[in-house]
Amino acid sequence: MPRYKLTLEYDGSPYVGWQAQDNGASIQGALTDAIAAFTGERAAVHGAGRTDAGVHARGQVAHVDLAKQWDTDTVRDAINFHLRPQPIAVLTAEQVAPDFEARFSAVKRHYRYRIVNRRADLTLDADRVWRVPRPLDAAAMHDAAQCLIGRHDFTTFRAAECQAKSPVKTLDRLAVSRDDDHIRIETSARSFLHHQVRSIVGSLVHVGEGKWSAGDLQAALVARDRARCGQVAPPHGLYLVRVEY
Amino acid sequence: MPRYKLTLEYDGSPYVGWQAQDNGASIQGALTDAIAAFTGERAAVHGAGRTDAGVHARGQVAHVDLAKQWDTDTVRDAINFHLRPQPIAVLTAEQVAPDFEARFSAVKRHYRYRIVNRRADLTLDADRVWRVPRPLDAAAMHDAAQCLIGRHDFTTFRAAECQAKSPVKTLDRLAVSRDDDHIRIETSARSFLHHQVRSIVGSLVHVGEGKWSAGDLQAALVARDRARCGQVAPPHGLYLVRVEY
Repeated sequence: MPRYKLTLEYDGSPYVGWQAQDNGASIQGALTDAIAAFTGERAAVHGAGRTDAGVHARGQVAHVDLAKQWDTDTVRDAINFHLRPQPIAVLTAEQVAPDFEARFSAVKRHYRYRIVNRRADLTLDADRVWRVPRPLDAAAMHDAAQCLIGRHDFTTFRAAECQAKSPVKTLDRLAVSRDDDHIRIETSARSFLHHQVRSIVGSLVHVGEGKWSAGDLQAALVARDRARCGQVAPPHGLYLVRVEY
Repeated sequence: MPRYKLTLEYDGSPYVGWQAQDNGASIQGALTDAIAAFTGERAAVHGAGRTDAGVHARGQVAHVDLAKQWDTDTVRDAINFHLRPQPIAVLTAEQVAPDFEARFSAVKRHYRYRIVNRRADLTLDADRVWRVPRPLDAAAMHDAAQCLIGRHDFTTFRAAECQAKSPVKTLDRLAVSRDDDHIRIETSARSFLHHQVRSIVGSLVHVGEGKWSAGDLQAALVARDRARCGQVAPPHGLYLVRVEY
């Protein structure tokens, strides 16, 4: 059976998350239904990352095996047709080798977290960013963040329900930049723990507000204690931007 | 009576436009109601530009006279409180001289037009950009656009119902740039004709698709004939970004 790699964009707001669950609509479920409407097959759709409820994607990747050899533009357009009017789109469809695995073949994942730092309510960016009303020092956030780069035990920044075997991960990039009242946090790693990005962002906001020093962030990391995490940033500011293979 | 300058952000999607009208909710009307709820006054709210239905603002400016001297942060926060949950926000409120006029004191207006150039449906950017499925040559659009810079009779790019006394305007900037599948068109002038930006963008898309040469765009301009306008781009890609005084 030919295997297809799908690159996906979605607005996570109306979903319980990537993974099919009993308690509501999922992205995986919507894709499974759209593929069934297209080919008649209930094919398993495997994603590179299980984004949580409310988390968005600009470049999630999934793979699926279909019985027939299809033109890849047809795969993209037909799935998109059957997804309408849901806020999920197949950006590209490609045929890949049968040993390609969206999750296990990935060598790097890139996430972005968006903050709007202002008093006024959100309008155009509602459900797309985290609004933080108190002034944030983005340069201090960036500087403090650098202590998290490299191979560490990230127990402090890991959800209690995280299923990863080990809390040790290697963070390749964590960059904080500001453009007017928009703050952007870009981070990359081979893989992340559950809630790792949101836990790091929540703690960096403590640094930005001046509640925490860079040393406090470092101390939280080395404590390997979930109770030392600053706060978990809300899901609607987080984007899975790209997965590298 | 003290005069206040309000800098505003809004999602234009649910509105008939800036101006209060009989046929639906307007941004001006929403602000008038919110100010009435705050101070008890039905004060006239004057905007720098009358954005059309569906057009957004990142930095519209308005002025309003209120009976009392208020702390400007209170003006901002109280109007925002009474605007909720509408997608309109006062970013800043300032007290200004009594001769300040949001519309007539403006020396430059900056607009942005956003295009997403791809086959796949929109998800996160629905109602925020114009999706153009055919490949666009943004560099060709930029090059052709430069013939519109300067002082010209823009009759070709002016709505039939435009109320400006003269079709002659001076365009200071018209820059087209691409970042992956996002195309951004930035334009600045002291003032614009009705539908001028959207008419220019629609015609530039003809250039980007290869339907029009740069010479065709130039010929459309010098024809001073509305029938020669390529097409009018949809409102939901347009943003009033900033007004200079």
